[in-house]
Parts: sequence; structure tokens; C-alpha cells
Amino acid sequence: MEITFELGYALDTFYFLICGALVMWMAAGFTMLEAGLVRAKNTTEILTKNVALYSIACIMYMVCGYSIMYGGDDFTWFLSGITGDGATGEAEPATYAPSADFFFQVVFVATAMSIVSGAVAERMKLWAFLAFTVVLTGFIYPMEGSWTWGGASVFGMYTLGENGFSDFAGSGIVHMAGAAAALAGVILLGARKGKYVDGKANAIPGANLPLATLGTFILWMGWFGFNGGSVLATATVESANSVAVVFMNTNAAAAGGLVAALLLARILFKKADLTMALNGALAGLVAITAEPSTPTPLQATLFGAMGGILVVFSILALDKLKIDDPVGAISVHGVVGLLGLLLVPVTNSDAATFSGQLLGAVTIFVWVFVTSLITWAIIKAVIGIRVSEEEEFEGVDISECGLEAYPDFTSGR
Amino acid sequence: MEITFELGYALDTFYFLICGALVMWMAAGFTMLEAGLVRAKNTTEILTKNVALYSIACIMYMVCGYSIMYGGDDFTWFLSGITGDGATGEAEPATYAPSADFFFQVVFVATAMSIVSGAVAERMKLWAFLAFTVVLTGFIYPMEGSWTWGGASVFGMYTLGENGFSDFAGSGIVHMAGAAAALAGVILLGARKGKYVDGKANAIPGANLPLATLGTFILWMGWFGFNGGSVLATATVESANSVAVVFMNTNAAAAGGLVAALLLARILFKKADLTMALNGALAGLVAITAEPSTPTPLQATLFGAMGGILVVFSILALDKLKIDDPVGAISVHGVVGLLGLLLVPVTNSDAATFSGQLLGAVTIFVWVFVTSLITWAIIKAVIGIRVSEEEEFEGVDISECGLEAYPDFTSGR
Amino acid sequence: MEITFELGYALDTFYFLICGALVMWMAAGFTMLEAGLVRAKNTTEILTKNVALYSIACIMYMVCGYSIMYGGDDFTWFLSGITGDGATGEAEPATYAPSADFFFQVVFVATAMSIVSGAVAERMKLWAFLAFTVVLTGFIYPMEGSWTWGGASVFGMYTLGENGFSDFAGSGIVHMAGAAAALAGVILLGARKGKYVDGKANAIPGANLPLATLGTFILWMGWFGFNGGSVLATATVESANSVAVVFMNTNAAAAGGLVAALLLARILFKKADLTMALNGALAGLVAITAEPSTPTPLQATLFGAMGGILVVFSILALDKLKIDDPVGAISVHGVVGLLGLLLVPVTNSDAATFSGQLLGAVTIFVWVFVTSLITWAIIKAVIGIRVSEEEEFEGVDISECGLEAYPDFTSGR
Repeated sequence: MEITFELGYALDTFYFLICGALVMWMAAGFTMLEAGLVRAKNTTEILTKNVALYSIACIMYMVCGYSIMYGGDDFTWFLSGITGDGATGEAEPATYAPSADFFFQVVFVATAMSIVSGAVAERMKLWAFLAFTVVLTGFIYPMEGSWTWGGASVFGMYTLGENGFSDFAGSGIVHMAGAAAALAGVILLGARKGKYVDGKANAIPGANLPLATLGTFILWMGWFGFNGGSVLATATVESANSVAVVFMNTNAAAAGGLVAALLLARILFKKADLTMALNGALAGLVAITAEPSTPTPLQATLFGAMGGILVVFSILALDKLKIDDPVGAISVHGVVGLLGLLLVPVTNSDAATFSGQLLGAVTIFVWVFVTSLITWAIIKAVIGIRVSEEEEFEGVDISECGLEAYPDFTSGR
Repeated sequence: MEITFELGYALDTFYFLICGALVMWMAAGFTMLEAGLVRAKNTTEILTKNVALYSIACIMYMVCGYSIMYGGDDFTWFLSGITGDGATGEAEPATYAPSADFFFQVVFVATAMSIVSGAVAERMKLWAFLAFTVVLTGFIYPMEGSWTWGGASVFGMYTLGENGFSDFAGSGIVHMAGAAAALAGVILLGARKGKYVDGKANAIPGANLPLATLGTFILWMGWFGFNGGSVLATATVESANSVAVVFMNTNAAAAGGLVAALLLARILFKKADLTMALNGALAGLVAITAEPSTPTPLQATLFGAMGGILVVFSILALDKLKIDDPVGAISVHGVVGLLGLLLVPVTNSDAATFSGQLLGAVTIFVWVFVTSLITWAIIKAVIGIRVSEEEEFEGVDISECGLEAYPDFTSGR
Repeated sequence: MEITFELGYALDTFYFLICGALVMWMAAGFTMLEAGLVRAKNTTEILTKNVALYSIACIMYMVCGYSIMYGGDDFTWFLSGITGDGATGEAEPATYAPSADFFFQVVFVATAMSIVSGAVAERMKLWAFLAFTVVLTGFIYPMEGSWTWGGASVFGMYTLGENGFSDFAGSGIVHMAGAAAALAGVILLGARKGKYVDGKANAIPGANLPLATLGTFILWMGWFGFNGGSVLATATVESANSVAVVFMNTNAAAAGGLVAALLLARILFKKADLTMALNGALAGLVAITAEPSTPTPLQATLFGAMGGILVVFSILALDKLKIDDPVGAISVHGVVGLLGLLLVPVTNSDAATFSGQLLGAVTIFVWVFVTSLITWAIIKAVIGIRVSEEEEFEGVDISECGLEAYPDFTSGR
């Protein structure tokens, strides 16, 4: 092989691996965010859910998810490993290591599932959650992934790509999908005791805001890998420029979202609401994810700010509807994920149309929501999904995990 | 274009982006460090300040800061984006993506501002702080940056570069500048209630030392990007060697600073003072930042150790002067930043002279201190900069943010 | 030089530096893990130990460790720096920056030492620990490193490499070595007061499980650098493929270890034991470290699962033997480190034989355990290694560091 081909292959592979490591790091971000936003008595359990879901996602995507999404008829690559010739059966030589592609893809699956854990926090049975994880990461997500990034047709009926659908790094494919699965779970699960009393939504403050802030910073950093790696190449001037624009715009959108949410919360509540600001940053990130490579920096900042404003109103609206989402995940990833999809044609009308984006959004949402609802319902019928009232009152840490998260700070209360 | 040019362009761009992501990560480091070193009742507010200042810095540097510092007459690049042809109007083709340059530069601005938030912690009004952030990141820092890294002359009077001034990654341009702005604020703000009583400085312990330690590790890691990226290229043997030396020496200086401060604190206080050790590591990092590429590893360790010793004495001296800096930021970044500048000629007399370093230090300090003092004074006159005594006693979290940082651990006290 | 040589040199150097930064980050991971698993009253001290051991390791490895391990007769390179010509005296030109090699190696030394601090937590004198750190990082580890990665013969008697020993990234050389040093310390030190009463092992819960979880995620992420960097090159198709497989398998093994430990703990204790799950993930990582490049993804997952199962039984067994290891470090790194060595011939019989692996394991263990035991014994005789009973009861934070880790949450108890 030519040395210049080898160097390009090596650089693209290294780029994928580093971006993948950053996305893996997002699992820590979700974990810290969610652990910071629940009460102390439910912390060990949400930590356990998060580390377990990441691990299950890695296993299920290896066993069948990757093949469903990209592999066509090859369900057994994990028995032989992925070689340099390309595991997906493509005829042309790969321009980066196929294992690096798997590594990058697998951390995305975990991201989708991480979104669910926050929304169902503080009252769901741990093993019911993990059973759902197996189905979502091994089947539900890979199926919709196959229709979008995989390029397959939706049950032989239509092809999203040919209808003007584009989702660069997954505002819809990853984030809205995770939120759809979460929404289905929350509807079947019901609200936490004491959340909605006499038609009023009570604030249930998180136990550890530095953790939530750390989690947001981790997600912000990891998102450089999430969006930046989705350019899928960096070893040419054109692709390198694109990756650079994506990093710059991802950062700008998060900044715009944070400032917008902070100002709006100041106007609405007269206080600098940290949790709204953090959700604003995350909303900015979700909003730019469907197309971070074509906006100008100013557009990216404004798109992020739109996400930051939308997320505040969405969180308030979901509380009116008594949809109890302790960390705001459905708003951040679902409502703003849809916004992200709809913003793509504004700056990239070559790749996407509004009708195409709507078709894609509906396809993803209906598929994930319906299959998730069925899955949650089956799990509910078989083993139940909600802890007992007494366990919820005592906190799920003791009943599910047998360990308090902060025994030296909270014991005796 | 030649494929080898493309590969070099791609590698340099990727290197900038990864280094930039590491510097962005320093924002999380400052946040955790400061959140760990304040009392529980003031934690939400310092978290809010830190996430907001980072975001404001990104916006202001886009709107005008970058243009002031590097762009000359181009104030509107953010409307059209930065293309591969170079945004700064240079005639020669760029050797890396211009957006990557912006991304790397913008995270530096945030670093300078992060230094301020720690020093003014526990008694400053949040919105006064954010107003100052707008001015520093959009104007004060970019102006002095234009005289140093930007190469412009100081008000048409003299040019620092031509007078033997060199500051590789910003001991003075970033760290001492941040400390100068902080000092101006602290002087106008006054000490925390109860800090200095009957001529004695009372220790006010931080609420969460694991967080402070985590923050230090994050900063240490991020500093590899801060200093390593400041080589500005890595795609040749020479530049790659330089980047490697910078990583090695940055690490060595931090290690030297930590051990020196730990030993000195042991001698002075008979205890292994963790917060002094952490400040020692940071001081080592600041000390090496003005020139990490020419010292030997032993010199880097010793320069770091000098920083670690100096910071302990500086913290004690500022307390004598009743300059109340809850996290030691003025000592770490200001006093040791000056040391860093003065150490450059020791190993790189080609680039810097002592007189040139002094001229640069005075220029930066006077500019930032005076403009900051004026800005703080205006903000003080218009909206006030200090919270009321009662708010300070109750903690600024409730009055400014309406949220406790640790409600399950501290409520009822 | 040819431009293609330069680009390869630059890419390999950058790869080393990024992997090294990730391994440095593991120091933060160990620190958070250990700080989360001890009681609040012993937290400041374990933080101090961890930041100090990292720094001491960097200094000692510079002063003599690197030369002992790789340099032969050159003990003074740190006086002149490492140049691009190669510091280790090799005749052939280096293919990456020698300083990058030092940086990558030095962070490994710190990893070995980090393992010790957890096992001896909550009752060892801080300065005794730091004295041991000097000896292990400057002499004990570099000696066994010289026999393995350095290629030297064991006291002129036999050469491990020629006898079928292979340890890719250090299951034995780093992890089991650290555990052997820890075991020697724990035996001389004795168990914590109250741990073993009336023949029963009492659980002593850690104070901050989110920190322990964060630490595990940090280690998981850092391990990509630890194992991925150990390919030692990435600028060709072959090496890039190898690095990609290593990233993928490292991740798979951690996932397998976590799930296996979680399920086993569920069966044994009827609870989803988070700390066992975390140790399972770490055990999976240790198990794959001796050979992450040849297994298939499925094998990597299963090897990790074997580690996850073994670590649970090992922790229970050590408690039966009254070997008190507060964080399970001896089980995770020692017992599973041995497993990792023995798994190498399963997938890479070209490089390793079972007899060769056993010879290597015995050599490393005997050397490190015996020299550590002697070192600990000397320190015990000279300054003592255990705090007084009263200090242990009050917590070592006050007596050793003079600072509480969480004064606002725990004061008044």
C-alpha cells in the first residue's frame, strides 16, 4: 500500500478512536448529571443503572445490534473479530479500521439508553430497567438506525434518505429516540409520590448540584467526539475543515443554550436557576447535533439559544401534563431533538427538506415509542416496573442495591 | 493539493481540536476546584458563575474578541463562518483549519475569566460578575492579547515582541491577566465577613475537598492541551518533538510544585496540607507555562517547585494584607504567573530578556488592572457588586440562585 | 527527511502523548475511586496520598527509574533533556519523540503505585506511605520493568521474553506488581479496627459512591490510553488496526466484567451491589490488559466476565483470611492480574506459553513482594507505619492533614 494511504488510514482511525473515547466519556456525564439531580436516597440505584446500561449496550450491540444496523446478513462477526478488510462486507477497501467504526458506533447506543435512565429515576425497579435496556440496545435502536444511518428502507415501504431526511450526528436518531423510549416508560410508570399534589407540581431538588454540573461539562466535552466524529473522516483538508467547524459550532450552541436558559429563567423565576442553565446547555447541544457543519458560528449560537429557550418551556409544560421527568430528559433530548431535526433545512437545504425531516421524526418517534411501550408493558406484566410505595419512601438504594450512596452524610435521618 | 500537505493540514487541525477540547475541559476543572473550596452555602452560585462565564466568553470572543485580538479590521466573520482560506485575512494558505484556531483561542479566554470567579467567591453578586465577564472577555483580554500574541503595538507606542518579550502559552497573557482582574475586584469588594477578625486571618474551610482535588487533576490534564497546543503545529519532526517536550515538562512542573508545597506546608504547619499541595501543583503549572519547551525535565521540575514554594508564601502574605482570596487564585495565577515570565530568559535567552519580560508584565498588569478597576467601579455604582450582609450570612445560593447545592446534607442547619 | 517519515513520526508522537494524557487521567480515577470508598473521616488523607504519589512517581522515574528500566548506563538524561535523536542510546533513528516515550512510561509508574494507596487506606501513616512511594517508583518497579519491557535478564539468570512471557500492557508488570506491594504493606499493617470482630467481617461502607463511580469511569476511559498506547505505534494500517482492536476489546472486557459481577452479586447477596459491579468492570479491564489485541470481541467480553466473577470470590476470600483491603485493590489488580497473564496463551500462543506466563508472574510477584516487605519493615522500624488507635478512631484527616474533607456535612458528629 502507498504510505500516504496508510497515513490517512491511520489518522482517520485514530480520530475515530479518540472521538469514540469522548463519547464513551458521555456515559460518565449522564451518570453524574442524573446522580446529582436525584435525591440522596435514590443515588446508588441510578449509578448502578447507568454503569449497567452502558455495559449491556456494549454487549447487545456486539451480539446483534451492529449487524442489524449496518451488517445486513452477518450476525457473527464478533466470533471472528473485525479485520482490516472491513467487517461489513463492503467490496471497497476500508479507509479506517473497521473495529474503530464499531467502537464509535457502540458508544452511541449507550448514549440513547442513558437518556432513559434519568426520566424514570427514583421509582423504577432496577431489573425491569435493565431488561428494557437489553431490548432497546439490541433491537429497537438498531432497527431505526438501520433505516437512517444504515440506509435500509423502512419495512420495504420508503427510504428516509431518498425523501430528504438528514440527521448528521443524531438529534433524532439518538436523542429523540432515547426520549421516546423514556416517555413510554414514564407514562406506564406514573409520577413520583408527592410530585403532583392538588394540581401543583412540587420541586424535588437534586442532592448534589456540583455533580450535576460536572456531568454537564463532561457531556459538553464528550459532544465534541459525538458530533466531531460524525464527519466520519478527517484526513483531508475538506474533512478536517468540517471537523473543525463542527467542534466550533458544537461549543457555540452549548454556550448559546446556557445563556438563553439562564436569562429566561431569570425573567420567569427571578433567580439564576442553575439546573435550567445546565439543561439549556444540553439543549443547545441537542439542537445543533442534527447539523453542526453548515451553520455559521452565529447561527450555531442562535440555534443553541432556541434550544435553551424551548427546553425551559417544555419542562414547565410537561409538569402541567403531569409527566414526571426528574432530570428533564424528555424535554432536552426529545422536544429539542425534534427542533434540531427541523433546523437542518435552514442551513443545509441540499441535504434535507422540512417534509423529509418531519417524515424521519415521525418514523423514529412512532417506531421507538410504540415498541418501547409494548416492551415496558410486557415487563410490567411479568415482573412489574415500579417499586412499592414503602420502598419509594425509604429510597430505592436500600431495597434495590443494599447500599447508601452517602452513608456518612445522611444516616440518622 | 498534494496529499502530504493535506495530511499535515489534517493532523495539525486534529491536534488543535484535541488540545482545544482539553483546554475547554479546564473550565470544568476550575469549576470543581472552586466549588470544593467554598462553603456549602455558596456552592450553587459559584457553579452558576462558572458555567455562565464560560458561555459568555465563547459568545463575546466570537462577537468581537477574536477580531480585536487577531483580526484587524474584520469584525463580522461570525456571520459568514471561517472557511478553509483563513479568516484572518492572511495571504498565505493556512496550514490548519481556521475554525480550529478560533476554537483553541476561545477556550483560552474562558480560562482567564475562570481565574476571577474563585477570588471573588462567597460575597459577590452574580449578575455583577457576569457583567464584568462581558467586558473582560470581549475587550480587556483581547486588547492585551493583540499586543502579545497578536503582535500589534501597544497604543502605537512600543511592540512587546521587539523588546524581548516572550510568553509561550500565557503565564502572563492569560494567568497573570486573570489575576490582575481578580485583584481589582477583590480590592473593591472587600473581605468576607469573619475572615479577618482582630487582625487575625481565620481559616474558612472548603466544603468538598474531593471536588477540589478532582478539579486540580482536571486542570493538570487540561494543561497538556493548554501548553501542548501552544506549539501551534505538530506535523513535523521538529514540532512533534517540541510538543512532546512540552507535555513532559508540564507534567514535571506540576509534580515539582505539588511536592514542594506539600513539604513546605509540613515544615510550616506540621501537617500535610492538601489545599496547599493542590495550589502547589497549579503553581507549578503556571510557572512553566511561559516557556515549557526549552527547559530540561529537571529544570521544569525545579521551576515548578519554585512556583510551589512561592505560592505558599504568597497566600500567607496576601492574608497579612487582608486581601481575601478564598481559593488562592491571585497567588497561583498572578504572583506565580510573574515568576513564570521571569523564568523564560533562564532557558530561552534567544526569545526573551529580563527587561522584556518585565516590560510585558507591567504592560499586561497595568492594562488589565486599571481597566478592570474602572469596570468594577462602574458596575458597583450602577447595580452594586456585593450581596447584603444577611445574604452573605445565609449563603448566596438561596438569594442568587434559589437552590441549595446539597439540600439533603445541609438542610436543617 | 522525507515528508512521509515526518508525518508518521508526528502522528505516532501525538498518539503517544494523547494516550499518555489518558493514563495520567487514571491517577484522578484511582483518587476518586478510593476517596469514594473510604469513610468521610479518612478522605482528605487518601486524596493527599494520591496526588503526592503521582508527583513523587514522576520525579523518581525521572531521576533514576526510567534509566534503570530502559536506559542501561545513562542516569543523567534529565540534566540535558531528551532530544529527537533518542535518549536511550539506540543507534537507529527514533520513529517518535523520545520525550513522548518518557511521558507515556512515567504515567504507568504512577498507576502501579496508585494501586497500593487504596489497600492500605484508613490506618497508614501518610509519610510512611510516601517514603515507600519513593522506593517503589524509583527502584522496585523499574527493576522488574527492566526484566520485562526493558528486555534485561533477571540478575543474569534468565530472560523472561525468551521463555515465552508476554504482557502487552501490564496485567502483571503494572497491576499485579502494585497489588504485590500492597499485600506486603497490608500484612505488616493489619486490619482496620472493627473490621474483623468475632470472626466476622463487617462491611465498612464508603462515604461517597458517586465519586467511586466517577473514578471507575475515569479509569475505564484512561484504560484506552493504557492499552491502546501499548501498541507503541499507530501510523501504519497494521498498527492502526491493532490500536482499534485494543480499544474495542478493552471496552468489551470492562462491560463483560461489570455485568458478570453484577449478576453474581445479585445471586450471592440478592442485591445489585454497586461496588462489586465497579470492581467487576475494573477486573475486566485488568484481565484484558495482558493481551487486548488478539481476542475476538466475544472473547474479550468473556475474559472480562471471568475477571468480574473472580474478583467477587477473591474479595470474599481475602476477608476470610482477614486481609483487610478497603477498596478491593489486591483482588482487582493482583488476583485478576494473574488471570490476565494466564489468558494470554489462549489467544496468542505465538507470543506466550503458560509456563512462560507463570515464570513471569512468579518472578514479578516474588521480587515486588519481597523487596516491598523489606521496605515496609524498615519504614515500620524507623518511623512506624500505623497511626495510633485514637487517630484511627478520630479519622486520619485531622491528625495527618489538619483538614476535614467535608466539614459542612459531617461536623458536629
